[in-house]
Amino acid sequence: MKIALDAMGGDFAPQAAVDGAVLAAAKLAGKAQIVLIGQEEAVRPMLQQHGSAAASLELVHASQIIEMGEHPAKAYQQKQDSSIAVGYRLLHTGAVEAFCSAGNTGAMLVGAMFSVKTVPGVLRPAIANFTPKLAGGYGILLDVGANAECKPEMLEQFGELGSLYAQYVLGIARPKVGLMSLGEEEGKGTAITQAAHQLLKVNPHIHFVGNIEGRDLFNDKTDVVVCDGYTGNVLLKMAESIYEILDAKQMHDPFFDNFNYEAIGGSPILGINDNAIIGHGVSTPQAICNMLLQGYQMAESGIADQIKSTFKS
Amino acid sequence: MKIALDAMGGDFAPQAAVDGAVLAAAKLAGKAQIVLIGQEEAVRPMLQQHGSAAASLELVHASQIIEMGEHPAKAYQQKQDSSIAVGYRLLHTGAVEAFCSAGNTGAMLVGAMFSVKTVPGVLRPAIANFTPKLAGGYGILLDVGANAECKPEMLEQFGELGSLYAQYVLGIARPKVGLMSLGEEEGKGTAITQAAHQLLKVNPHIHFVGNIEGRDLFNDKTDVVVCDGYTGNVLLKMAESIYEILDAKQMHDPFFDNFNYEAIGGSPILGINDNAIIGHGVSTPQAICNMLLQGYQMAESGIADQIKSTFKS
Repeated sequence: MKIALDAMGGDFAPQAAVDGAVLAAAKLAGKAQIVLIGQEEAVRPMLQQHGSAAASLELVHASQIIEMGEHPAKAYQQKQDSSIAVGYRLLHTGAVEAFCSAGNTGAMLVGAMFSVKTVPGVLRPAIANFTPKLAGGYGILLDVGANAECKPEMLEQFGELGSLYAQYVLGIARPKVGLMSLGEEEGKGTAITQAAHQLLKVNPHIHFVGNIEGRDLFNDKTDVVVCDGYTGNVLLKMAESIYEILDAKQMHDPFFDNFNYEAIGGSPILGINDNAIIGHGVSTPQAICNMLLQGYQMAESGIADQIKSTFKS
Repeated sequence: MKIALDAMGGDFAPQAAVDGAVLAAAKLAGKAQIVLIGQEEAVRPMLQQHGSAAASLELVHASQIIEMGEHPAKAYQQKQDSSIAVGYRLLHTGAVEAFCSAGNTGAMLVGAMFSVKTVPGVLRPAIANFTPKLAGGYGILLDVGANAECKPEMLEQFGELGSLYAQYVLGIARPKVGLMSLGEEEGKGTAITQAAHQLLKVNPHIHFVGNIEGRDLFNDKTDVVVCDGYTGNVLLKMAESIYEILDAKQMHDPFFDNFNYEAIGGSPILGINDNAIIGHGVSTPQAICNMLLQGYQMAESGIADQIKSTFKS
């Protein structure tokens, strides 16, 4: 199995990408091979510095880079030899089984929809994030930014997508799905969350536990929390800032340390025909390594096929 | 000046209310008198236990109680001798200058709109909350639950209401107003936040600094953060849960300790013709005391008149 990494994506690329890929290669030895995608003249010397530790890594040349500030759709279409576009081509043709990038989030999303495409029956893919649980492990929060506005039917599908991920990748037998709202009662929330509640309640593919509140993100009421991408993004960034503040104050604890994006690595795009993961722009080698391990787990679990067969019916 | 307190509101009422009122009375001696509203047979003995410390407190009898789980509008209309309804009558007639309650939030909101009423020109009142700042002090987040859905014009007005509160009650000379979004660029956000951005940008009464993200809630980019009541409520409750988790883990720090609702006391309803504050259901005597001090500050500042004159023009 091959797992591809955008060597040019992220604020500290290509160095952090190469270093992270070498870390992951050691952990995945005998199970998967890492394919780096990027400018050969920049990446090759960094690989050589790692000597034999980088021997198993493959390098695919891509002459262009989509910068962080570029317009996603425009850049993706104009830069067909960018590391992101090349990565999605490898993914789409089956040359690799997962593609990871800490580069331009919007371009990763556009690439997913243009190349490997949305699963038939899925209205819109969602970006999922991992929320640490007080009892240990992680839950899933989605959408965290792919869709600022969501129809009730999209929120319902996010419940299904998150539940499948929790089941097949995180190994949670019967994931509890909750809908983010202002109160536990059915009637609480916006017109959209109220309508989504009614759809989630009767969906036979999920174990819906009802509305939850902001205070329930870290407890064991749910394994999967559904919300629109605006709310999810605001929550995610606030949680990240809390971790950064605690870290700056040297206030450490196993639960709060799980907020560190480095421990997770990246956010999968769910609802597309293949495995794609978006990393944090400031990704360190450790974060890149964990994103690649997550890519391997997704590919190994067959989550994309599970999603396809669920939405076919 | 008289400040009224719902003696029957909150999970630990009337004991916590009476004890908190006695604490506040000592701090406000010579400046304001506390008026307790509630069932005389329950409250009087508690006051007597405090002896001379409770001598300055006034007690107004109200025979009914609106329970936490009751339907706000129905309960408010049917229980005209409830402590909340009596409190708003005293406020409306000018017998008291602020009314505080840790009781049914919805009933407090309904009472505000039925009795003292929304300021002419204000589309909908908002509930404001206080967010601790890393540099010390507090910023304002609104709406945190009065309006799950908001039109762009409402969000614009929340910017004005929050700015006036920051200026006149918190003493911030030129409050920076930010709009909660997914990214700093104008075009980021939902259709509603994008439209609100355009309105806030040209509003002459405020110092609008643009979009902010979830990570900016605690830094010095803004003094006032505007969002819809769904988002604000989810953020507020998540922040509260973070404090509770830190507290349970005995991880204390001056910044995070400012997340404790007890330090603040309550959330003002802004955009009504008078001063009303809603406290947390689990309010302790310390929280009740701080809510009353906040009520005094609001009354003393003349914030309600400032809001009225701003929206008259």
